[in-house]
Amino acid sequence: MSGWREECGIVGVYAPGEPVADLAYLALFALQHRGQESAGLAVTDGRQLDAAKGPGLMTEAFRDRRPDLAGHAAVGHVRYSSAALHSSIQPIFAYGHGGFLCLAHNGNLVNAPVLRTGLERSGCIFQTSTDSEIILNLIARFPGPTLEDRVKGSLAQLEGAYSLVLMTGQTLIGARDPHGFRPLCLGALKGGGYALASESCALDAIEADFLRDVAPGELVVIDQGGLRYESIGGPPVRRAACIFEYVYFARPDSVLDGLSVWQARYNMGRRLAREFKVSADLVAPVPDTGISAALGFSAESGLPYLEGLIKNRYVGRTFILPNQARRRGAVDMKFNTIRSNLLGRRVVLVDDSLVRGTTSAQLVAKLRRAGAGEIHFCLSSPPITHPCCYGIDTSVRRELAAAVKSVEEIRAFLKADSLHYLSRAGLLEAVDDPGEERMCTACFSGEYPTPVYGAFDDEGS
Amino acid sequence: MSGWREECGIVGVYAPGEPVADLAYLALFALQHRGQESAGLAVTDGRQLDAAKGPGLMTEAFRDRRPDLAGHAAVGHVRYSSAALHSSIQPIFAYGHGGFLCLAHNGNLVNAPVLRTGLERSGCIFQTSTDSEIILNLIARFPGPTLEDRVKGSLAQLEGAYSLVLMTGQTLIGARDPHGFRPLCLGALKGGGYALASESCALDAIEADFLRDVAPGELVVIDQGGLRYESIGGPPVRRAACIFEYVYFARPDSVLDGLSVWQARYNMGRRLAREFKVSADLVAPVPDTGISAALGFSAESGLPYLEGLIKNRYVGRTFILPNQARRRGAVDMKFNTIRSNLLGRRVVLVDDSLVRGTTSAQLVAKLRRAGAGEIHFCLSSPPITHPCCYGIDTSVRRELAAAVKSVEEIRAFLKADSLHYLSRAGLLEAVDDPGEERMCTACFSGEYPTPVYGAFDDEGS
Amino acid sequence: MSGWREECGIVGVYAPGEPVADLAYLALFALQHRGQESAGLAVTDGRQLDAAKGPGLMTEAFRDRRPDLAGHAAVGHVRYSSAALHSSIQPIFAYGHGGFLCLAHNGNLVNAPVLRTGLERSGCIFQTSTDSEIILNLIARFPGPTLEDRVKGSLAQLEGAYSLVLMTGQTLIGARDPHGFRPLCLGALKGGGYALASESCALDAIEADFLRDVAPGELVVIDQGGLRYESIGGPPVRRAACIFEYVYFARPDSVLDGLSVWQARYNMGRRLAREFKVSADLVAPVPDTGISAALGFSAESGLPYLEGLIKNRYVGRTFILPNQARRRGAVDMKFNTIRSNLLGRRVVLVDDSLVRGTTSAQLVAKLRRAGAGEIHFCLSSPPITHPCCYGIDTSVRRELAAAVKSVEEIRAFLKADSLHYLSRAGLLEAVDDPGEERMCTACFSGEYPTPVYGAFDDEGS
Amino acid sequence: MSGWREECGIVGVYAPGEPVADLAYLALFALQHRGQESAGLAVTDGRQLDAAKGPGLMTEAFRDRRPDLAGHAAVGHVRYSSAALHSSIQPIFAYGHGGFLCLAHNGNLVNAPVLRTGLERSGCIFQTSTDSEIILNLIARFPGPTLEDRVKGSLAQLEGAYSLVLMTGQTLIGARDPHGFRPLCLGALKGGGYALASESCALDAIEADFLRDVAPGELVVIDQGGLRYESIGGPPVRRAACIFEYVYFARPDSVLDGLSVWQARYNMGRRLAREFKVSADLVAPVPDTGISAALGFSAESGLPYLEGLIKNRYVGRTFILPNQARRRGAVDMKFNTIRSNLLGRRVVLVDDSLVRGTTSAQLVAKLRRAGAGEIHFCLSSPPITHPCCYGIDTSVRRELAAAVKSVEEIRAFLKADSLHYLSRAGLLEAVDDPGEERMCTACFSGEYPTPVYGAFDDEGS
Repeated sequence: MSGWREECGIVGVYAPGEPVADLAYLALFALQHRGQESAGLAVTDGRQLDAAKGPGLMTEAFRDRRPDLAGHAAVGHVRYSSAALHSSIQPIFAYGHGGFLCLAHNGNLVNAPVLRTGLERSGCIFQTSTDSEIILNLIARFPGPTLEDRVKGSLAQLEGAYSLVLMTGQTLIGARDPHGFRPLCLGALKGGGYALASESCALDAIEADFLRDVAPGELVVIDQGGLRYESIGGPPVRRAACIFEYVYFARPDSVLDGLSVWQARYNMGRRLAREFKVSADLVAPVPDTGISAALGFSAESGLPYLEGLIKNRYVGRTFILPNQARRRGAVDMKFNTIRSNLLGRRVVLVDDSLVRGTTSAQLVAKLRRAGAGEIHFCLSSPPITHPCCYGIDTSVRRELAAAVKSVEEIRAFLKADSLHYLSRAGLLEAVDDPGEERMCTACFSGEYPTPVYGAFDDEGS
Repeated sequence: MSGWREECGIVGVYAPGEPVADLAYLALFALQHRGQESAGLAVTDGRQLDAAKGPGLMTEAFRDRRPDLAGHAAVGHVRYSSAALHSSIQPIFAYGHGGFLCLAHNGNLVNAPVLRTGLERSGCIFQTSTDSEIILNLIARFPGPTLEDRVKGSLAQLEGAYSLVLMTGQTLIGARDPHGFRPLCLGALKGGGYALASESCALDAIEADFLRDVAPGELVVIDQGGLRYESIGGPPVRRAACIFEYVYFARPDSVLDGLSVWQARYNMGRRLAREFKVSADLVAPVPDTGISAALGFSAESGLPYLEGLIKNRYVGRTFILPNQARRRGAVDMKFNTIRSNLLGRRVVLVDDSLVRGTTSAQLVAKLRRAGAGEIHFCLSSPPITHPCCYGIDTSVRRELAAAVKSVEEIRAFLKADSLHYLSRAGLLEAVDDPGEERMCTACFSGEYPTPVYGAFDDEGS
Repeated sequence: MSGWREECGIVGVYAPGEPVADLAYLALFALQHRGQESAGLAVTDGRQLDAAKGPGLMTEAFRDRRPDLAGHAAVGHVRYSSAALHSSIQPIFAYGHGGFLCLAHNGNLVNAPVLRTGLERSGCIFQTSTDSEIILNLIARFPGPTLEDRVKGSLAQLEGAYSLVLMTGQTLIGARDPHGFRPLCLGALKGGGYALASESCALDAIEADFLRDVAPGELVVIDQGGLRYESIGGPPVRRAACIFEYVYFARPDSVLDGLSVWQARYNMGRRLAREFKVSADLVAPVPDTGISAALGFSAESGLPYLEGLIKNRYVGRTFILPNQARRRGAVDMKFNTIRSNLLGRRVVLVDDSLVRGTTSAQLVAKLRRAGAGEIHFCLSSPPITHPCCYGIDTSVRRELAAAVKSVEEIRAFLKADSLHYLSRAGLLEAVDDPGEERMCTACFSGEYPTPVYGAFDDEGS
Repeated sequence: MSGWREECGIVGVYAPGEPVADLAYLALFALQHRGQESAGLAVTDGRQLDAAKGPGLMTEAFRDRRPDLAGHAAVGHVRYSSAALHSSIQPIFAYGHGGFLCLAHNGNLVNAPVLRTGLERSGCIFQTSTDSEIILNLIARFPGPTLEDRVKGSLAQLEGAYSLVLMTGQTLIGARDPHGFRPLCLGALKGGGYALASESCALDAIEADFLRDVAPGELVVIDQGGLRYESIGGPPVRRAACIFEYVYFARPDSVLDGLSVWQARYNMGRRLAREFKVSADLVAPVPDTGISAALGFSAESGLPYLEGLIKNRYVGRTFILPNQARRRGAVDMKFNTIRSNLLGRRVVLVDDSLVRGTTSAQLVAKLRRAGAGEIHFCLSSPPITHPCCYGIDTSVRRELAAAVKSVEEIRAFLKADSLHYLSRAGLLEAVDDPGEERMCTACFSGEYPTPVYGAFDDEGS
């Protein structure tokens, strides 16, 4: 799949006496897949704040230097979208009445315009267009005797998706919005101290023991006195964890809200095989995200699992196709076929999802050129019919293939022999939420768990 | 002279229909001597703001890209000190209730801590430690129907030194503090429109006609309606233009507040020759800043002017002396002697000022090695006994040679045959202010034109 | 596996009227896995030679510019080892009596010292330490009426491994040593013209039709007159294609000398499962090179294939582990485990080969921490007991685990429950050469197909 | 003056026990004015050769690393022209029968094509288009028992201009062609050992004592046994030191062949004032190269010396004028005027030489805009009518203003009130060679001291 873009990954480490800058760096590195366009890291020893940030992958962003202050706490962030302004790269720092605040967050607030206008009317100025700066201004202005009071009072005003880590000179706070859209988990470091991260694979990277997921609507406060949990407050809302983390975003070696991502994808593949009976010679994945589902499909269907496509690992952010090649159109450097596995074979090709469909059509053409007999294109998720407003940068609606075309029309576009989407019920079962009580499936259904404040009004034109 | 560090240079251009981004870039380039550690440039067409900034000389800061929006106004800044944070590089942008504000300023506010604490108490947060961000927050919060009202009300709260250019989508404003510490001048572009700049040499660079200096306490407002002058207001205060602009900072081809910098330095040299009669064979400058004064000394004394020292033009920001060489100590790549002019000669060596004295001692040693018979070290300014708090980053007081040593002690340290400082009266006469009614000479006298709010209290330790 | 290092990848394109520079670039990009430390590309239109080369991956080496001359022929090279001197980066150019020669080659000559000493004695000087420069000097000096005569006469003097592409203003020549150690294949471009490349995946990348492998001892000459094959000549020698191309080096989507690399690895896995019967719960590969063999093992044994290890795709050339982390030792960012697939399970872990064994030991430890019950470490190749002298930079002999330790000692070092190597007979069967008539297996047997001229004499000390 | 381009600067250091890499680096830095487009440095300890080279100024070329081997000898080079190929950057290294040779040279061989063709016919290949590679090949092939024999025999075949330093593992050799076109001098290091350099200012930079200039046709051989002088041999030829070193190339603080460059220029100015009597108000130089001559003119004429033009020190290699500004044409960022010195004044403007005249015309226009009354343009050298073939990259003949225009035509083009060239006799007197027995003045006279082998034949077309 291509077209979906992971928004962000965040980490926070609180561990006096430990190399927190290095730990945060390594944990963040495990989240690089969540954002490749900028990275930032900040460390504090209570008095000083040592930070570095820059565009690109972490190896680029920290080429010149990496924060190395011997501090007790650190916060890091990787981000998908290429910020025009350097100052928009997270974490965002601000100095106010009570010292500094340093924030890294993942997600998207649906009421950001309202909050920002209100703050501007009362004299606030903004140096970036980030939600982070709104949150920092809210905290700085909220009346209240303690940091926690001010943070809780501020977060209560937010609507939408956010998982965040907030660092002051003395305290590290992790928080997750009441719906729990984006993931956040907590671990205990071997040498003492705690770590917060978007995914559990980041805890593995620093050999931290997984303690538990931060609960929706929960605040984890870590300071000299240890660890305590508080509630953001507000009226109860339904849980709505992003189901796409399981379908595509998260790393397969992560466990989110108690469910292994790998296992969820394997389940999707099994379920898909139950929904779609086909006579074929083999099952092959679109690497890498289709692998677990293809294995599940193979296990359930009894069809052998083989590799049909090989991915060129060097096609990265900075690879640019020559003009000549681009004009020829068909050339795609990212995948090549293994002819001996495809020639004359009937192939079930498994991918996780389909946004625009252009890459999928290229893959089908490649398989045809390699001699594949039949190609049955299978997706481990339902048709994506609605854009996301909780932090995932999909296309606007009219660019979503499934929003404007029928399944048959898409199949014809792909030139596949057949096209099969996993049903919504099948997907929910695969993530162990058959009653849809815990997951957000708005991108498949248009049923947004929050008001969307006319976010998509101007799309139609 | 070395040890003094120019703080900043600023430019603003308002010229619908002209290439304002290029004009601002060229004007700023003429001010590169005022700041070599970072540079920034912002252009607007009323709706968009196109900006770039970065560390280093302009050629480095704009290596990747230079703003090239076809706009009607632009603002630029070069800065001496190497900002830790990228977001501290000016111009600073902020978006508030009335649109964006973009500010570049030169100088130092003495009441910045008070203003900042007040703002923080009322919920403001700061992402940098710049005075600029304080000024922007004051403007954003000041009540008033028009931008000018809000700017005037805000500037009236500032104490200390500032010359600034402020750009919004529609308006370009230049302002200079009531004392007039730092320079600012106004020119008219050949093709229509106006330019503001720290020094007149920047107007020359873009072939703008010099109109006049912005007066102390004055606001120049430029917009679609043309040009108008307003007053910041407040009680009248004495004029206090920084005399060091004439001694060292400004380019000799600039004219500040009606006085040619080259001519002022030449006058200093003449006056120095009247104060110090010496029997010698030649007058030689420490290039480049000692040249004009040495020529004046030569003209007045009748001693021939010759070159004794040659400067290596390639010793710049990025030149790093090898460790081995540094350990040997005496090696200084910046200057070499012209032996044939020095051998057996009695030399009057003219420099502009002396801060720590280490470089001066190296120069004397070099001249001795080249065979100079006598060396009379002459300075075109009085002993610097007090640090500056108006935007010039000198040493703290205890590092100023003249604050802790007698003239004879300094001479002995330099190993010169004699050492002569221009008198304060002589300097004031050279800049045509014999009654000291227009100039700030605090660094020579300790008589600061404003309260200093205990700025130097913690120096003694 | 780690420790083995691919030497080089080469491409040559001859196609008047086609964008040869772009085609060579794209073909070379498909060979990036064969060399990541430097890259070079040269294009000619018969008169001019436009070239660029640099250290690092292709995206780095060609960051500033890529040759874009509209020529008729191009040659490219990627190389493993980080050359100290820029001039050692291939292709190497030389201008001589008959115009220029441009050479890119893969392999290692065993008689290079002898050839070089002879050339030096006759007045030759060398600006690099490459075999390429030796070959160019031989060609320049060899008497003969035609280029082909001189090339054939020169290549006949070489002993050891080489596949090369040689470009002059008019001609492109590909050649493969009489043993055929390193691969080289030929394709026909859709728009006319020909391409030579180390592996067939490079032909796929530019949609060239595979024509055939260049035969051992064969010369392919391409010019205006078309394509012709010639023989290097010399006494017949045994074929000796590097078996390690199939075990580890080549991309699985390549077909070398008629055998699919993917299929060969799959065969190795099947054969391994026949040699090693074990009671276990699952088969898991060390990604990526163990995947095909693990699938073969699974198919043959009937044990389910599952993913147990996930590779962090961002750990590349420029990733540097922080000191702190390095000191802790156990931290390895490259792999993470999928716990749900491992907990309490008996695992057959399949890798391609083992050089030093340190990474393998870390992987076993990781699986243990993830709760694996039993770990049976399986290798799809025999113990490596002898270093290579044909272009693969392995360790010297005493650093090869299998050269100095018994299998049981290695197992104990890995802390695996069992350790199994594929037999040499099994490997040869997997590559369809049961009688060992076509392959070089010197690294497993010490039976070098050529004299080695005391190359390893000084190792023991 | 602009248009002339200095070719090269070279250094060699032999000093066991001293930090030769650092010393060579510092000495070379003093010669940066002789070449700004590439730099290289090589050090040896007898066994190893540690080298680095790259494009740009030294700070750029050695940005990544600088050779730091603890060796006993080092060689360095700076070069004007931007080499297309990295391998053309000097020093050039070659490994041959007797070990390595490392060469840096300044100058241009007139018989290079003949020598190269001969070498190519005997089987030599060339990886660069440098004269250096020709010289290295000659040395490698010349029969002879000792290095000195081979070097002498090789140099005897060269015709044209060369000053060179050649380093082997044990020996450092300096040599200057029999005419002595390009300078080369020798110094003794304080800590023991010797240094060779293009100009004496490089010896000053490392506090080496100047011993003497290397004589035309002389070889200086430095090794463990100390220092010895030998002769290249061959028939005696006239001395022909490049007079343009005194006019423009060399640094004013250098002493070449016993004559101070500063003093020579001062003499040119004095002589010019004797040849051209004018009624004027002041003498002003074109900085920097016109300064010494202007001072001489002032001393002789009695007219006061003042600064009329100020040079922007930041306009360097990497400064690029924006398109818009370029189109406006007249904008020149390099110089600004000091109006107060020019307004209504009759000015004698002194520059060193005039090639195309375009910059000079811009300067005259600038002075006019600043209000200068009369402008008398004076040049401290005669009209340049012939191109150089000894290592100075002037224009081809038809681009030399004085080759195709009369003095009056040039004056009219400059729009100056008068234009005066120093006479050839005057120039020769200024450099203390009234009988023209030691200097080459070919660029003024067309009397080339060597055959030119049709070098300029194809110019006319």
